[in-house]
Amino acid sequence: MQSPAVAHRHFINGAAAPSSPLLRLKPIPSTSSPFSVRMSLREDAPSIAVVGVTGAVGQEFLSVLSDRSFPYRSIKMLASKRSAGKKYTFEDNEYVIEELTADSFNGVDIALFSAGGSISKEFGPIAANCGTVVVDNSSAFRMDAGVPLVIPEVNPEAMSHIKLGTGKGALIANPNCSTIICLMAATPLHRRAKVLRMVVSTYQAASGAGAAAMEELELQTREVLEGKRPTCNIFKQQYAFNLFSHNAPVLPNGYNEEEMKLVKETRKIWNDKDVKVTATCIRVPVMRAHAESVNLQFASPLDENEARDILKKAPGVVVIDDRAGNRFPTPLEVSNKDDVAVGRIRQDESQDGSHGLDIFVCGDQIRKGAALNAVQIAEMLL
Amino acid sequence: MQSPAVAHRHFINGAAAPSSPLLRLKPIPSTSSPFSVRMSLREDAPSIAVVGVTGAVGQEFLSVLSDRSFPYRSIKMLASKRSAGKKYTFEDNEYVIEELTADSFNGVDIALFSAGGSISKEFGPIAANCGTVVVDNSSAFRMDAGVPLVIPEVNPEAMSHIKLGTGKGALIANPNCSTIICLMAATPLHRRAKVLRMVVSTYQAASGAGAAAMEELELQTREVLEGKRPTCNIFKQQYAFNLFSHNAPVLPNGYNEEEMKLVKETRKIWNDKDVKVTATCIRVPVMRAHAESVNLQFASPLDENEARDILKKAPGVVVIDDRAGNRFPTPLEVSNKDDVAVGRIRQDESQDGSHGLDIFVCGDQIRKGAALNAVQIAEMLL
Repeated sequence: MQSPAVAHRHFINGAAAPSSPLLRLKPIPSTSSPFSVRMSLREDAPSIAVVGVTGAVGQEFLSVLSDRSFPYRSIKMLASKRSAGKKYTFEDNEYVIEELTADSFNGVDIALFSAGGSISKEFGPIAANCGTVVVDNSSAFRMDAGVPLVIPEVNPEAMSHIKLGTGKGALIANPNCSTIICLMAATPLHRRAKVLRMVVSTYQAASGAGAAAMEELELQTREVLEGKRPTCNIFKQQYAFNLFSHNAPVLPNGYNEEEMKLVKETRKIWNDKDVKVTATCIRVPVMRAHAESVNLQFASPLDENEARDILKKAPGVVVIDDRAGNRFPTPLEVSNKDDVAVGRIRQDESQDGSHGLDIFVCGDQIRKGAALNAVQIAEMLL
Repeated sequence: MQSPAVAHRHFINGAAAPSSPLLRLKPIPSTSSPFSVRMSLREDAPSIAVVGVTGAVGQEFLSVLSDRSFPYRSIKMLASKRSAGKKYTFEDNEYVIEELTADSFNGVDIALFSAGGSISKEFGPIAANCGTVVVDNSSAFRMDAGVPLVIPEVNPEAMSHIKLGTGKGALIANPNCSTIICLMAATPLHRRAKVLRMVVSTYQAASGAGAAAMEELELQTREVLEGKRPTCNIFKQQYAFNLFSHNAPVLPNGYNEEEMKLVKETRKIWNDKDVKVTATCIRVPVMRAHAESVNLQFASPLDENEARDILKKAPGVVVIDDRAGNRFPTPLEVSNKDDVAVGRIRQDESQDGSHGLDIFVCGDQIRKGAALNAVQIAEMLL
């Protein structure tokens, strides 16, 4: 039976509600067995640092490391001065959160960064120079020529030259959440029929703007239901029972930075300068998981049934496509799940000769969209 | 100063909350002046019937008639047996709601129908045979060859042969809400550069599924915030803090009926069998207004600045496109408004030579998406 707290969290898409462990500095309820927990602490395993451990993604790093029994010799919990000194229990061991400094990375093999772009820009290269392999969840280095931008199921080869224990550090970038979720579904089809053009419209959750945005959505919703003016701190407009164009800065071409990430990151990850992508990114009042409506144009014909079979076999993808029962992926259903869900797989009748498909994709923004993908990258280093 | 009730309604997109007049059988607060109210009751004006007066759209019919000082000699309030006999005050006069029967339309010049497709199928032709001009908000007759499908700003010519006072009745269909809102923005651009293909993704409000769905969204949200299991009566899955593929039945081609309405109604309204449209219709936890992400492909090049100028001059359209301030249309902003708002107007870089645009459109589903458009059709008969 679920505890009220867990049920609550589940019902609002794993919302980082004040009542939820996800936002508070306390042990993550580990779903891994005591055996796997014991196994994960090993002398021959790498030493890890988590940068931004108190954030929503930082907390999810720990949750995913524990769930997947990621082996480690030691873990450094790094955060801002504000959190330094606080005690933190993880997998039966007590840790003290340390302030992130230039000396934090001595002897650290792998550092998982999710503390914002400016922290990554400052401390990522410092860590790499200490011989640490950095997996960075920010956008700081994603488009740098020398930095692999990796989705393990999509382009693992991009980081094949990076090894642990060579004393040589490196930077590896985690793609943007919308890109990861979109390409988890589009890549298996791209390999079969080559995508020429994608038209993407997103339905993005609060979690993409961090834990505070998730709290603001819940607070605003309570306020609105009580007939009060909603508190707008994170976003400058009402979010509850509303939606709006993604809050990323708008560039001179009229697209916002979130949209251009989908365009540019897709080209880099697919190593295809010619693939055409246009995106409209919208923030919807959903707590934790993103949805994306994706229209695909292919170089070769691709039948919807073959596409469905390809996606059913794709790693990290689950197909939910029940037309009779009108059951398709929803953000709630994929919240706190690892797999990206794909459905509404249908031949686009506005394109000739089976060269087009429409699909609908949902994925947990914090998990596969961020923490899980980063930990999977780290796993490839072992 | 707003009353708490009004404020509440405003904040949740004009939500049909139990506390909201929109759902209850009481006078609509008229925004028209006493003078215009007096003017609207005239002996030389047509007699009107409102079919489905107790529904969300039926209530909005009255609100719009009053706001626009629509002239009438008399109004019949028609509903199901359940509501028959109830007293109802509208523009200072008291009415008794009558049960809809085959005899309801004797002497009625114009009937506004919004009581569902089956009621329209049964009573629409009966009314037309009585010499009544029926403006039907259901999908019952939209694709019938002999029935004009009209957006007054788009294709008024389609109903030019229908006149009042000839004793000849007729059926006129109101397009589907998503089609109206999309074409209000796309048509002015279509006239200039001819749309070859549209890729539409919708963000549809609860109001499209009626008053009960709006109540269910509010109830579910309260339940979820209290950690309770949400009540699912109208929709079979959780709606609060979630979104899902539109609940319309899915057809053999994999598109649902809502999506195919956009495809087929666009062709009929534009009188263009060749225009290509593909749509993905999604229900989002917003109360009253729809949003649509529309990717357009044109036969001739169309510069985004010219497109913006065209839309600024388009009747019934307001442009909200502040890139510097990151301010664009939102459902909340257009709720209870007549105009459709368009923004995010930008050249689609995934298409060659300025032949593509991306736009984002918001419109009040109950107002321009239903009641207002129907009353505008009735105004063209005067």
